Amino acid sequence: MGKKPGAPSERVRAKRMHERAIYDRAVIEAILDAQPLAHIGYVLDGAPVVTPTLQWREGDHVYWHASAASRMVDHCDGAAVCLSVALLDGLVVARSAFHHSVNYRSVMLFGKARAVTDPDEKAARLAAFINRLFPNRWDMLRPIAKQELKATSVLSVPIDEASAKIRTGGPKDDAADYALDIWAGVLPLRMQTLAPIDDPLNKPGLAPPKHVLDFRIG
Amino acid sequence: MGKKPGAPSERVRAKRMHERAIYDRAVIEAILDAQPLAHIGYVLDGAPVVTPTLQWREGDHVYWHASAASRMVDHCDGAAVCLSVALLDGLVVARSAFHHSVNYRSVMLFGKARAVTDPDEKAARLAAFINRLFPNRWDMLRPIAKQELKATSVLSVPIDEASAKIRTGGPKDDAADYALDIWAGVLPLRMQTLAPIDDPLNKPGLAPPKHVLDFRIG
Repeated sequence: MGKKPGAPSERVRAKRMHERAIYDRAVIEAILDAQPLAHIGYVLDGAPVVTPTLQWREGDHVYWHASAASRMVDHCDGAAVCLSVALLDGLVVARSAFHHSVNYRSVMLFGKARAVTDPDEKAARLAAFINRLFPNRWDMLRPIAKQELKATSVLSVPIDEASAKIRTGGPKDDAADYALDIWAGVLPLRMQTLAPIDDPLNKPGLAPPKHVLDFRIG
Repeated sequence: MGKKPGAPSERVRAKRMHERAIYDRAVIEAILDAQPLAHIGYVLDGAPVVTPTLQWREGDHVYWHASAASRMVDHCDGAAVCLSVALLDGLVVARSAFHHSVNYRSVMLFGKARAVTDPDEKAARLAAFINRLFPNRWDMLRPIAKQELKATSVLSVPIDEASAKIRTGGPKDDAADYALDIWAGVLPLRMQTLAPIDDPLNKPGLAPPKHVLDFRIG
C-alpha cells in the first residue's frame, strides 16, 4: 500500500494535454474509489475488446470479477489489460465549437491481469467488493457457497502504470470571442442515487439499511 | 441508415448471459443515443488501450473526435477498434453476495475505424456532434476556423458488428433465501443535470439557452 510510483512509462505518459495528466497516487486512488464503473480492455485474436464492469480498489491493486466461464477471464488472466475509469462531471459550453469541452476525472491503468485462485483469498476480495459498495453488508448476507466461489473469477491488476486526467472549470475561449452575444458556461453533471425500491418479496417490516441509503457515486 | 444487421459474429455473440444479449438495431441505437460517453479500445504495440471520449451517432455510423496530433488518431485510423457505451441504471441488492448485480444498458461495437478526411464532411460531422448535444447550437456559434478543422480529427466506425446488453428489475435470489431477514431491492441511479453555471465573462444579460436547459443524459 502507498507504493511510490516511478517515472511514468512511455505508454502511460499523456501525449496530448500534458497539463491535465497527473501521476499523483492519491489523485489516482481517489478517482478509482469514486467510480465503480470501469471499462476493461484486452486483446482477443489481435483485436481490442472493451467490457464494462464494476471495479474496486484494495491498497495497490484494482480488482474486478466475472463469471468463471466468461471469455474475459480466459483472455485476461496473465495478459495485458487496460482498465479505464471515467466520471463525467459536466459539459463545457463555449462560444466556438472548437472550445466546447467536458469536465471529467479519469484514470487509465495498464498492467498484466492476474486471477485470484485461492478460494479464501477470493472470498476476502469479494467481501471487500460488497463492503466497498455497502459498508459491513458482507457479514449480514447469507454466507457465500463453495460452488458460488468456484463460479466466480476475481481478476486484479497492480496500480503501477497509471495516470489520471482531470478537467475542471469554465470555457477557455479565444480572446476575440468574448465580445460575442453567445451564452457560455458549464452544465454540471453528477450521478444521482434515487430512493431505494423494496423487493416486493422482502419479509414484512424490512427497511433499507443505512449502507444502502448512504450509497453515492462520485 | 436502418441497414439490417446480419447474424451476430462469433466475436459479438455474448458467450455468457445469453438472455441479456440483444442484436436489435433500434435497441442498439437508443443506447448509443442515450449515452455520449464512450470508451474506445484499440491496440498499441500489441497491448490494449482504452480511452474515454464522447461519441455521437449519425445513421449507421458512430463518430468521435480527437486532436489530430493524438496517438489515438495515429493508431485507430484503419485499425480494429471496440467502442463500448454503458449506462449504470442501478445497483441490485440481494440476500446473498452472489446475486448482487447491476441494472445497466450497454453496447459493444466492433469495427475498423476510418478518419474523415474531407474538410466539409468533417465540419458537417462536428456540426452534428454539437447539435446532438445542444440542438441548433452550431449555427449560433462563431464559425469554425480552417485551422481548427485541421487540428481536429473525426473518426467513425459503422454499426455492423454490435450487440446490446440490458439488465432491469429486482434481485433474483435463491428460493431458500427469501425466508431471510435481509433487505433486498434496487438502488436506482441516473445521470443528473444540475443548473447551468454562467461563465463570469459572459456579456451582460445573456441567459442559458433552452438547448442547454434541456440537456439530459440517459
